[in-house]
Amino acid sequence: MFEQLGLIGCGLMGGSFALALKRAGLVGRVVGYSKSTDTTARALALGVIDVVAASAADAAAGSDLVLVAVPVAATERTLQDIRDRLTSRTLVMDVGSTKGDVIQAATRGLRERVGCFVPAHPIAGKEVSGVDHADADLYVGKHVVLTPMPTTLAPQLRQAEQVWQALGARVVQMAPDAHDAAFAAVSHLPHLLAFAMMHSLALQPQGGDYLALAGPGFRDFTRIAAAEPTMWRDILLANRHDVLDQLRFFQQAVHSFVQRMEDDDGRGLADLITQASNTRAGWSMASFTPKT
Amino acid sequence: MFEQLGLIGCGLMGGSFALALKRAGLVGRVVGYSKSTDTTARALALGVIDVVAASAADAAAGSDLVLVAVPVAATERTLQDIRDRLTSRTLVMDVGSTKGDVIQAATRGLRERVGCFVPAHPIAGKEVSGVDHADADLYVGKHVVLTPMPTTLAPQLRQAEQVWQALGARVVQMAPDAHDAAFAAVSHLPHLLAFAMMHSLALQPQGGDYLALAGPGFRDFTRIAAAEPTMWRDILLANRHDVLDQLRFFQQAVHSFVQRMEDDDGRGLADLITQASNTRAGWSMASFTPKT
Repeated sequence: MFEQLGLIGCGLMGGSFALALKRAGLVGRVVGYSKSTDTTARALALGVIDVVAASAADAAAGSDLVLVAVPVAATERTLQDIRDRLTSRTLVMDVGSTKGDVIQAATRGLRERVGCFVPAHPIAGKEVSGVDHADADLYVGKHVVLTPMPTTLAPQLRQAEQVWQALGARVVQMAPDAHDAAFAAVSHLPHLLAFAMMHSLALQPQGGDYLALAGPGFRDFTRIAAAEPTMWRDILLANRHDVLDQLRFFQQAVHSFVQRMEDDDGRGLADLITQASNTRAGWSMASFTPKT
Repeated sequence: MFEQLGLIGCGLMGGSFALALKRAGLVGRVVGYSKSTDTTARALALGVIDVVAASAADAAAGSDLVLVAVPVAATERTLQDIRDRLTSRTLVMDVGSTKGDVIQAATRGLRERVGCFVPAHPIAGKEVSGVDHADADLYVGKHVVLTPMPTTLAPQLRQAEQVWQALGARVVQMAPDAHDAAFAAVSHLPHLLAFAMMHSLALQPQGGDYLALAGPGFRDFTRIAAAEPTMWRDILLANRHDVLDQLRFFQQAVHSFVQRMEDDDGRGLADLITQASNTRAGWSMASFTPKT
């Protein structure tokens, strides 16, 4: 399907994409670039990439598919660096968790080539990062949200859908602002709350003693608090408008509970908990049906 | 060790205690009472109890060990009902998640027999409830917190420690108020927040669409929101003072994050997340070393 993948950023996400593409026989060769030469050397040794490029621009040159899998903060600069190497038929995608900021970066960074760009968010990951954990199965059965821009070219959008489907992912299309609101609600805000939970204990002299008594409920509730700080700083800043909107809804919900507790309103409190409990019990992961 | 266990409330917690005690060969017979006759019949059929009692008082009569494993709201009434059947040597325990309220209930309900009572909180449970899920292994390797009262008799306290240890549990002694503060911090508040997270989505017209996109992070963060409503209503009301105290610490922590997001303070935000992430990564469950 593709002659050459230019992989910019050879970490967990990018490395897994390259491995999956190779396994599916969908790519001739993979030219990789990472900021760290250790990473590219490791990616080469692991067979994730076939050729090491000296720069992002070199990785993009001659590639009909370019995956930009760098920290969100580096996206605009990276797109700027590769712009002159793209043709009108290149497909360029990212893998970021926020889309509004990436679209701004692409508009500024790619200029006349912005039509090549299909913003993509694969809902996949691991507790660990780095090319050593790259996994051809990472995207199998996972959702990939594409948030095309008005400028996005139809052939690129079609190709983007096809390549993710060929890797076993379930492709969903959303408007960028709907994407950012949805993930603020179900991912970014929960991370902020889990971080805050850990801080809340750190604020108290007995916090360490309390932690020592915590059980499996606490373990699961705070698992996401161990996430990678730089990535989450970028996400919380990039999507802060939506995250703070979601926080307002959350605080409204907390207030309902507090009021019933303060009023000793057992019946009202039981009603609230029952609704929450039923909603959670009735939910199961990845129930989204893509609109066709 | 014991001639007769009077089991009042034959659910998951009580049933598991009876099964464990039998397996360890520590009890002659188990006389059980439940509010629902279906439950007692089932407990009898499963071999959890040997004899069905017609009332809580009948279950306590002649028992040298009484376990009250009823909803917290029913504790005082139950203790009142059994008071006249206790001797100065009976050991009476509960299994409730909050201790301040249970101690008040015991003081009022048991009066001159309150010395028999050792407040107990086994940190164990399952996603499912009911005698059908009773399990002789439920308490193995788990913490059991005992919160003796000033009136608690020394022989009963010693026996309580011994019996839980014999079942494979790790016994910890704490002051009742320290217990309630600790579990407000690491269990009750997290539950309230998980309930509120589900409500926060329910407050929004697109909440259902958002939920459909949620992934494994959300799944773990909200797992405890599916908890049993009546039990959690009782816990949140019984321990509301401590839970609201903990909520104030939590809100202070949330505010730190919001401030840095609003100020676009990437460095400060990364510092906060790094601290949270390190605390969580450094934590492991059940690290508590009981004071000897």
